[in-house]
Amino acid sequence: MKDTLFVLKLGGSVVTDKAKPFTPNLPAIQRLADEILQAQSPKLILVHGGGSFGHPVAKKYGIMNGFKDKSQLAGFSETHEAMVSLNKIIVESLLRKGVPSFGMAPSSFVVTKSGRISICDESPLEQAVKIGLVPVLYGDAVLDLDMGFTILSGDQLAAFLAEKMKAKRLVMGVDVDGVFTDDPKKNAQARLVQRLSLAELKNLGSRISGAGATDVTGGMLGKVSELASPVKSGVETVIINALKSGNIYRVLKGEEVVGTKVKP
Amino acid sequence: MKDTLFVLKLGGSVVTDKAKPFTPNLPAIQRLADEILQAQSPKLILVHGGGSFGHPVAKKYGIMNGFKDKSQLAGFSETHEAMVSLNKIIVESLLRKGVPSFGMAPSSFVVTKSGRISICDESPLEQAVKIGLVPVLYGDAVLDLDMGFTILSGDQLAAFLAEKMKAKRLVMGVDVDGVFTDDPKKNAQARLVQRLSLAELKNLGSRISGAGATDVTGGMLGKVSELASPVKSGVETVIINALKSGNIYRVLKGEEVVGTKVKP
Repeated sequence: MKDTLFVLKLGGSVVTDKAKPFTPNLPAIQRLADEILQAQSPKLILVHGGGSFGHPVAKKYGIMNGFKDKSQLAGFSETHEAMVSLNKIIVESLLRKGVPSFGMAPSSFVVTKSGRISICDESPLEQAVKIGLVPVLYGDAVLDLDMGFTILSGDQLAAFLAEKMKAKRLVMGVDVDGVFTDDPKKNAQARLVQRLSLAELKNLGSRISGAGATDVTGGMLGKVSELASPVKSGVETVIINALKSGNIYRVLKGEEVVGTKVKP
Repeated sequence: MKDTLFVLKLGGSVVTDKAKPFTPNLPAIQRLADEILQAQSPKLILVHGGGSFGHPVAKKYGIMNGFKDKSQLAGFSETHEAMVSLNKIIVESLLRKGVPSFGMAPSSFVVTKSGRISICDESPLEQAVKIGLVPVLYGDAVLDLDMGFTILSGDQLAAFLAEKMKAKRLVMGVDVDGVFTDDPKKNAQARLVQRLSLAELKNLGSRISGAGATDVTGGMLGKVSELASPVKSGVETVIINALKSGNIYRVLKGEEVVGTKVKP
């Protein structure tokens, strides 16, 4: 699918209000649906984060740390159902705008091993893209070969699929302009890193910052570390602010947008 | 998983009111959840039909007949979303009763070829059963290698999984007592066929009857024809009335229930 497929990850802090449980950011979702419709990318896969839907439930039951006792099974299912609810809101918003979106459940086709994707048959996803659907996936509670279950972040999933399906471009849409030298929400001196090489990425370690409220999937550091593999494989990878009107439209049109480009 | 796994299909006419669009049969769902909890089957997979959720939407957009033009893409997605809504109601009812149910989306891991299951990676499903979850699947709008997309009936899915996962027993829960010599809702002389051999099954053809309101997936004839393959493979297969209180509990306990046994 090279040269035509775009994978767009929309962070949980973009599609939900992270401060209020089970609260979608409807104005942002509807604006993004408009931008996606206008851009008319020939092939597009969307992945969204959990935000105030998945994270609080996952945290309550300790899903991230694996299966310890039977009482967590309902919590595992509830975490998934919370994500299904958010996915439904996003899919239906896109459908209403005219984007032929199609919700797909990662836990139904991905199994991890110690938290990393181990089994993934992307045939249904490929067929969906082939006939013109825009699959909409998400970070999910998934089965794990070693841990019983765990959380698969939308970041890992988006990076994995972009690489495996040979996407032209992987776009990480977050709630800040990209990777900063410090948290831009706390430090006015923080500077945007416009180009980040894989060598620099390795050295950034804990100094990296920029994600909003803490989440169970690692924030900005977790996000950026997922990008090394697709970048090495030649996927053009950028981190941009999806809350700034027009950014997603422009990036899907192949235009330049302020943000962080991750380079080999 | 032989000797321990049960696959239970609950017909659309059991879990919904087929006469009223988007109307779940909540009293039946809650009673069935109780029976499933009480029976405590060690390993169980549930599959439910579409009833008044999936069928009217699928029919409206002609999803069954495959992809003809772009305007159907939204209809394909809407059909799936209607099933997601019904699945959510059933999963959440089971969770509230204490059954560790887990919703899984067939369209995310199955691709058909001319309407028959062609690609199916059941690893996530197997892992879910292994840790003690009760996966809840459904008839779904799925991608198809020849037709673009089509409808996968819950009957085909349940029969396929029972055979492939070497289930001990496949239970088809419907809204009548089993296969009749004529439609028992219209003909008081109709007689219940208590044992049906595969040879008889072949000859029944259009004489077979017993399903409720017409559906897009073939009614009782479609249902029974799906059973030949698992029966040949040694899966104990019965068609029983899931609307009669106690039937599902008893069949899951391995007890005798009035119905149709399909025999090799």
